[in-house]
Formats: sequence, C-alpha cells, structure tokens
Amino acid sequence: MIKKPELLAKKLRLSFEQPDFFIMALTHRSMGARNNERLEYLGDSILGFVIAEKLYEMFPNASEGELSRLRASLVNQGSLAELAREHNLGDYLILGSGELKSGGYRRDSILSDALEAIMGALLKDQGILACKTWVLNLFAKKLGELDLKKSQKDPKTQLQELMQSRKIELPGYELIKIAGAAHAQMFTVKCTTNIDSKEASEGTGDSRKKAEQEAAEKMLKLIIKKNK
Amino acid sequence: MIKKPELLAKKLRLSFEQPDFFIMALTHRSMGARNNERLEYLGDSILGFVIAEKLYEMFPNASEGELSRLRASLVNQGSLAELAREHNLGDYLILGSGELKSGGYRRDSILSDALEAIMGALLKDQGILACKTWVLNLFAKKLGELDLKKSQKDPKTQLQELMQSRKIELPGYELIKIAGAAHAQMFTVKCTTNIDSKEASEGTGDSRKKAEQEAAEKMLKLIIKKNK
Repeated sequence: MIKKPELLAKKLRLSFEQPDFFIMALTHRSMGARNNERLEYLGDSILGFVIAEKLYEMFPNASEGELSRLRASLVNQGSLAELAREHNLGDYLILGSGELKSGGYRRDSILSDALEAIMGALLKDQGILACKTWVLNLFAKKLGELDLKKSQKDPKTQLQELMQSRKIELPGYELIKIAGAAHAQMFTVKCTTNIDSKEASEGTGDSRKKAEQEAAEKMLKLIIKKNK
Repeated sequence: MIKKPELLAKKLRLSFEQPDFFIMALTHRSMGARNNERLEYLGDSILGFVIAEKLYEMFPNASEGELSRLRASLVNQGSLAELAREHNLGDYLILGSGELKSGGYRRDSILSDALEAIMGALLKDQGILACKTWVLNLFAKKLGELDLKKSQKDPKTQLQELMQSRKIELPGYELIKIAGAAHAQMFTVKCTTNIDSKEASEGTGDSRKKAEQEAAEKMLKLIIKKNK
C-alpha cells in the first residue's frame, strides 16, 4: 500500500511546481526505465557540495583531511537511510512488485538513493539555493552533533571505529619490512581491510607504531574516496 | 621566479574582491600552515556538482552510470592539470623551496589541486552562481568534445581504454567458479587491476563473457568512486 506522494511532500515541507520530478524521485528502477537513478546522481552531487561548503564554514581550523572525514561520517548510505526512515520515506516509494515483496522499502540503499533523488528533484524544480536550504535543514541535527575532536583522533583509532560502526571485521596490520642500520631502522607496515572489496595500504616510519599510523591514515583516505 | 597573481587573475578573467583568497589558492602546503588545501576541498566539491548538473542537462537520455563515467573522464587529475597548463598556472604557484627545486610546479597533482583551489576561492569570494559560470566556461571546450557513444562502449572495452589512457597495465580476468548443471552453468570471473592499490571485483553470468563484462562494470564503478 503506497501512500500518496503529496502527503510526503507536505511532511518534508516541500512544494513542487513540477510534481513529476518528485514522483520520479520516489520511483525505483524496478518500475522500469523512468526511475530515480538520474535524479539520485544529481542529488548526490549537490548534497556533497552543500555539506562540504557548510563544514568549511563551520570548522575554519579543520584541515582538508578532517573536513573529508567529517563529511564521510555525515553523508553515507547509513546516515541517509536513517534520515529517510525518520520521515517514513519507505511508505511512499514506488517499487516494482519484486522489490515490494522482498521488502525493498526497508533497504538502506533504496532509501538512501530515494532521499538523494528528492534532492535532485528539488534542484531541478526550484534551483540551487532552495535545494541548499532544504538540505541544510534536513541535516541540521546531524550537523549540530558533529564533533571535530572525534575526527582528530589518531588514524588507527578512527579506522577501528569506522569499521566497528559498519560492523566490518577490524583492519589487520602486518610488518612487512625493516630496512636500514640498527640505529636508523625504517619500518614498513601493511594494513588490510575488507570493505566492499579487499583493500591494502602501506605506511613507513622510524617505529612500527608510526608506520601503522601512516598505513591507517592512507586506508582512511582510500575508504573516504570510495564512499565519497 | 614567481609571476604576479594579478597577471594570472587577468588571464583567467577573474577579479577578486578579496584577493587573499586567490593568493591562498595558489599557495602550496610546502609554504606552511596557510595553504590551499581547504580551498581545494571546497573547489573539488563545487566542481563535481557543476559538472554533474551540466551533464544531466546535456544528456537527457544517459543513464546514471553513463553520467558518472562522463564526469570521471572530464574531471580527473590529468584533465585538470591540462587545463592548468593551458593557463601556465605553474608559473604563479607559491611553493616552498623544496618543491620549487624538485619542479613541483610541473606536477599534475599540484597543478590540479591549485586549479580546484581557485574554484573554491571564487566560490567564497563571489558565490555559487559566479563560480558555476566560470567553471563551465573553463570546461566549455572539453564539454563540447564529450562523446556519449564512447561512454556507451561495453564495460571491458571502457576499462581497457581507461587503463591505456593512464598507462597502467591492463586488467586481468580469471575464471574462478563454474556452478550449476551442464545446461545451466553460472560462471564467476574475477577482474583485478592495480591502480593506486590492488583492486578486485567479481562478476557472474550464464557465459564467461557475460561474467567478464559484469566484473569489468563493477571495476569501472570502483575506479570512478575512488577517483570521483
């Protein structure tokens, strides 16, 4: 039983001049060629920009790496699905019968995509400034809870917490090389994780600990890039 | 010998109300704490959005995957460095002595980062609409040359061409599983590449060829995500 899109629009405080955009944003690809994938692509890009700009302003002393990590903690499939659920987005999704039967309206990926598609629809319907205002409003609570300190923890701790939050097995560290004379040894450590695919990074340093931290830092960058 | 930033601004048809932003955009981290990394972060996000929106409008029939691939072909370190070189950006970079000696002004990464930082500076100085106009103008020629057909080649061909354009060894395909009865076999193929780090993807299909195409498609998505 699909609820009427107008009800959702009202709940989200949205009023579309061209409601077709909104309906398309709710339409999963299981319904056929006219679906929300293009709008999701657009929404994903505007969301990334709006949050990046906001974080830049909120944290004038944060480094580029810290800003990237803050954004990754704020904008990801899990957090978007959470926001979607707060507004019962799943009740309004237009899904093909297969997805409907298998409970697609409960899936993180489908919810997250639809929410991004709504952002894309809003951009097309009302332009960038209106879209930006709405997105910032949607994220207001999450933005308020952000903690720069958390993003300033050392890389190994950050990586471990990230893996724990996603319920993925913890990263492995392996000493793979010791070079140089006894008083000036350089250690190389390999860090491995298994997220969507297996990933490896290497760090070097004049202690094993430093090499591990560098490997963890590189792994964090890899993960952030992959998840945007 | 560093040329005056004003000359570059004129060449780029930019006029900053707060020239400090522009100077910061040209300042590499080798100069110390006040550098262009935060502006680059901002510029990267606005660039991604502006090009995404433009492609969405230019190619109304392109799928989300095609739009992603088009953007990846347009916005990457190599293409940005190329644009930077067209305007002799390297002559205006403010680099620490180490980077200066080692020829940092010629490096793709430094040139590409500085160009993105200029976009970030423009966003801060003049707002999103002015920034968007300038970015689209900068990319006008590249946008005009875009070829949707190229992005519609089959995934294996696209992946091979991508690797060749980046002068990286070609991807490997390995049949790792055949399951099912003789008349309904399912093939699983693993695709491996070595870009920044080793990557692997898997595809399945009722023929080896189909499984390879799916594995290549997944690898393309991985690469696009990693490179944004």
